[in-house]
Amino acid sequence: MVFLFLCDAERGAVFAKAFAEHLSDVRFSMEAASVAPDDVRYIMTWKPPEDLERYPNLDAVFCIGAGVDQFANASLPSKVKLIRMVDESITRMVVEYVMMAVLCLHRNLHVYIDQQRRHVWHEVIPQPQSADRRVSVLGMGVLGEAALSKLQGFGFKLSGWSRSQRSIDGVACFSGEDGLREMVANADILVCLLPLTPETTGILNKELFALLPLGASLVHAGRGRQLDCDALMSALDSGHLSGAFLDVVDPEPLNSDHPLWAHPKVVITPHIAAITQPASAAMTTIENLRLLHVGRNPVGLVDKAGLHRQ
Amino acid sequence: MVFLFLCDAERGAVFAKAFAEHLSDVRFSMEAASVAPDDVRYIMTWKPPEDLERYPNLDAVFCIGAGVDQFANASLPSKVKLIRMVDESITRMVVEYVMMAVLCLHRNLHVYIDQQRRHVWHEVIPQPQSADRRVSVLGMGVLGEAALSKLQGFGFKLSGWSRSQRSIDGVACFSGEDGLREMVANADILVCLLPLTPETTGILNKELFALLPLGASLVHAGRGRQLDCDALMSALDSGHLSGAFLDVVDPEPLNSDHPLWAHPKVVITPHIAAITQPASAAMTTIENLRLLHVGRNPVGLVDKAGLHRQ
Repeated sequence: MVFLFLCDAERGAVFAKAFAEHLSDVRFSMEAASVAPDDVRYIMTWKPPEDLERYPNLDAVFCIGAGVDQFANASLPSKVKLIRMVDESITRMVVEYVMMAVLCLHRNLHVYIDQQRRHVWHEVIPQPQSADRRVSVLGMGVLGEAALSKLQGFGFKLSGWSRSQRSIDGVACFSGEDGLREMVANADILVCLLPLTPETTGILNKELFALLPLGASLVHAGRGRQLDCDALMSALDSGHLSGAFLDVVDPEPLNSDHPLWAHPKVVITPHIAAITQPASAAMTTIENLRLLHVGRNPVGLVDKAGLHRQ
Repeated sequence: MVFLFLCDAERGAVFAKAFAEHLSDVRFSMEAASVAPDDVRYIMTWKPPEDLERYPNLDAVFCIGAGVDQFANASLPSKVKLIRMVDESITRMVVEYVMMAVLCLHRNLHVYIDQQRRHVWHEVIPQPQSADRRVSVLGMGVLGEAALSKLQGFGFKLSGWSRSQRSIDGVACFSGEDGLREMVANADILVCLLPLTPETTGILNKELFALLPLGASLVHAGRGRQLDCDALMSALDSGHLSGAFLDVVDPEPLNSDHPLWAHPKVVITPHIAAITQPASAAMTTIENLRLLHVGRNPVGLVDKAGLHRQ
């Protein structure tokens, strides 16, 4: 029984060590050419491999990242499970990023960064207090819920939106098209943590920005294809929006002559909100293999139909 | 019995309203010229007034800010109490600022800001995890303790230093000269929240920076005169330190041709870590007046001898 690891060798080495220590009945390999295809039961990868039909006994594909939109057109055989990475390190890093970006926008760091470029020492007043800041999160899965929980500790007014209605203490929960409009119309800082699906592609567009209150700002740590960059820049230039933290764009890397780079109200980070950490990810994967071996659902099992919905 | 408010009229209006509602036996005034000096029992101010001898019955001077170093040479009569602002809004804002700056340095935002200037999309790796980041706080008064408590929620390795030895769960506590050296030698992100005293003037100097581990960074939200800017820039330029968030410098505002503005590893904010919010500060002051009226010590009573120590 082979677990074929098709990602970078650096993280592979950490996985190999963990498998050797904790899971003796699975053979770990990083070289597709050196294993009999019939023996391969599991594959870990970032993008769908092109030669899946080589592996007749494949049981599951593990994605090393949290997002699996790259599998939308992969046409995995129906018997092959798709499992995304639900790892404590990813959640923790995304929460850190969201907390950092929300605090920066709340405390006007993007304004001070721009002032620093011009050597200007000027206090932005009034400075709203956290109890008067409405922070709204698009996406209330594992990541959104964890981010909301930490934001709560800083006294922000919170709301969240998800495909199906949720209920979280201290968070005004919204769902559906009407719920989206209602929440966005009352968001001072809007945080996008949505997965990329047909429904969320282009969701951060001109209409949504127009719904946001005057002076609102955006944290985008979802997927690049959810954001209409031109619409964002128009909303910033008109003064309707006051700032944006962008961790994802489309395409990545952002072209070096793209006007976003020099926009005085935009802070760009190069898709670093979460980086799967191999030590914890390896243990998470081993736990999932144990669940699979006793016939239970692994953590992060993807509803493949949902990837294609609409 | 008059409470003379000698700060800005905007905050004064909020104080006036709160006094009228909650403290009928004290007359609130913002005009020194319109009250009999003999009636003045309390003065609220930012800097020591020059004509204190006009008020023979003065009982206490309330500073509207958290820091009272500007009173070091004020020679208040010994019977006049000095009370600094210990307000929930100041604590909350300083904690927000520290959390923001520490997360930014932890997640390399200062590097990404510099890359953005040059239109560079490049992930900084490896990205240490919070459990491997040693965050050390200079100053463990109300502000330092509150900051440490919030930092704890993000999983950092914490230590703190104070004049007298403290004990806080989950925080390695240091004091004294040797304790300072030991803590600094093991700090990845050093946060200064110290009050300005003769002992802390110039404490962030060449010797201290040399003690910090290679790659360490600084958050300075204490007082400008604690920092040797030239020593900081040398330590950053040599590569020994990796970054700095500065909210205070000396003098303020920072001169527009100062080299700090354009330093690629420095983020400058214009002394905005905390801004006393009048609504909560007024209630804090009223509570303190009630304590004084029943002969108890007010919250924030300053040891005036400590201001001159050394």
